[in-house]
Amino acid sequence: MPVIGSMCESIADDLAKVCRIIDDELFSDLAVVNDLCEHVRGYRGKMLRPALLLLTGKACGTTTDEHLTLAAVLEIVHMATLVHDDVLDEADLRRRKPTINRLQGNEAAVLFGDYLISHAFHLCSTVDTFACRQIGASTNTVCEGELQQVHHRGNWRLTIDQYLEIISRKTAALTGAACLLGAHYAGAAPTVVAELQRYGVEVGMAFQITDDVLDLVGSQEQMGKTLGRDAEEQKLTLPVIHALSRAPAAVQARVQNLLQAGHPDRQTLADLLNEAGSIEFAMARAGEYVTSAVARLDVLPENEARTTLVRLARSILSREV
Amino acid sequence: MPVIGSMCESIADDLAKVCRIIDDELFSDLAVVNDLCEHVRGYRGKMLRPALLLLTGKACGTTTDEHLTLAAVLEIVHMATLVHDDVLDEADLRRRKPTINRLQGNEAAVLFGDYLISHAFHLCSTVDTFACRQIGASTNTVCEGELQQVHHRGNWRLTIDQYLEIISRKTAALTGAACLLGAHYAGAAPTVVAELQRYGVEVGMAFQITDDVLDLVGSQEQMGKTLGRDAEEQKLTLPVIHALSRAPAAVQARVQNLLQAGHPDRQTLADLLNEAGSIEFAMARAGEYVTSAVARLDVLPENEARTTLVRLARSILSREV
Repeated sequence: MPVIGSMCESIADDLAKVCRIIDDELFSDLAVVNDLCEHVRGYRGKMLRPALLLLTGKACGTTTDEHLTLAAVLEIVHMATLVHDDVLDEADLRRRKPTINRLQGNEAAVLFGDYLISHAFHLCSTVDTFACRQIGASTNTVCEGELQQVHHRGNWRLTIDQYLEIISRKTAALTGAACLLGAHYAGAAPTVVAELQRYGVEVGMAFQITDDVLDLVGSQEQMGKTLGRDAEEQKLTLPVIHALSRAPAAVQARVQNLLQAGHPDRQTLADLLNEAGSIEFAMARAGEYVTSAVARLDVLPENEARTTLVRLARSILSREV
Repeated sequence: MPVIGSMCESIADDLAKVCRIIDDELFSDLAVVNDLCEHVRGYRGKMLRPALLLLTGKACGTTTDEHLTLAAVLEIVHMATLVHDDVLDEADLRRRKPTINRLQGNEAAVLFGDYLISHAFHLCSTVDTFACRQIGASTNTVCEGELQQVHHRGNWRLTIDQYLEIISRKTAALTGAACLLGAHYAGAAPTVVAELQRYGVEVGMAFQITDDVLDLVGSQEQMGKTLGRDAEEQKLTLPVIHALSRAPAAVQARVQNLLQAGHPDRQTLADLLNEAGSIEFAMARAGEYVTSAVARLDVLPENEARTTLVRLARSILSREV
């Protein structure tokens, strides 16, 4: 758990319980289904969303069984998006393991993603309709963001605002919901719940920006997944948008040529983006989200969980995986 | 609405309300999403699942707003399965219109199917946790059935029992849930609810068997969708299983050769299956499910909705689309 790993000792036992809830929920009487469940167990890594939910709960008061269940729901939703994303991206590798589409074909991957979504809602229904409503609203938004992203593939004029709008839907809606639920089920006041949701949204924004940066300049060995797909699929992310709009004209032209030709050489593109200050620009934007997120935590009393939430947000900027 | 059309005058107004609930739920502030919503409005045809839910409710007592909402939930779930099925089947045509994968690619189709699933659960959360739990359990089962089906593709030894197990999950679970919910929210006694769920399951079994028969011998013009995909994809259905196991050895060999070669000529296969009595065999099994389903309705008092449920079940056997 590279981002949050060591800083999450205080919730390590709870995260282990969350994993057991996930396993119990996904268990099927069909071997063909359980083989797939077993495979995606290996996808669990950072457990960012469960960690956000549990830490927010602890920072606001006491966590309950509802926190554990909802942490499992969010992680299952996240697993579903990974499985379907890998189909869309034609990715071969996820957490150093072959993807489901690679192993068993796109059909099994689409259906198994559906199985995960269905189980997330099935599990959520053991809590209450408020939780079901919140999770449903978040996943509606996630799907909208993903559809927007596909729609804008190859759109060389995508603006920074459009990019931020897309990632706020596809990523930040769910991290925001994690913190909202964590605070709500710990009995926090509505103003605190709202502020923590914003913390979650901003953490999600920073996380996605750095994720996109790593797709361009990260190490595939360290990340353990297929990288460089965004550029290959002409999916514009913040550094590229910066380079295409704010770099010297000659650099703009070289970046666009590289992307339009398809299968751009990763190192060449990375060098160009670094040279144009585009990586630095993107990381600065991620930094602004982290600063804002951390300030939201002022609504909370001083406690260990709050300190961990501060560290978690800041760690996003130094993550290598 | 060919199967149920004219016999559903008593619920026509309610079905129109269900359509409005669906449109309201799926509306997005993003044009790219609404274009897709607009497109799948054209997929609505029989509305079998909403009709089952509403008629079961009326047959047991009075229908409420919960019936209308849950009828919309079931139809959205069904639309999601159609959209994802068309990706899996690489189908080009659905209700005489191009499929979403054909129009906008597999990625948009996978994501839009996810959008539909998400909205189904979001809408369901306005009812209560019982409804969320039932819908979640049914969709879990539907996904299992679909995964089993993909797993057994090209399995020439698939048995009749295995086939029935697959369709009971992928189709009958949802029609069973429709009737269970219809009865439950009309305040029916638990024994009546259970019997009507079985009616729904058996109607679903008969419906899927005839659907599979029509994929082999139906008219593409009348059905308005791509047919013959099951045989092309080496997905064994009841007539083929019958021919491969119970027809004279020479016919068995010809059917298997035809399927194994890929892209079998539809007319040649249809003639062989008719000759071997395999179509008749499958329709007889569908007939047995209908007979059993109709008998379940004995738990209900005589009323118009019950009469319609009897006719609806019987009409499955004479459906051409």
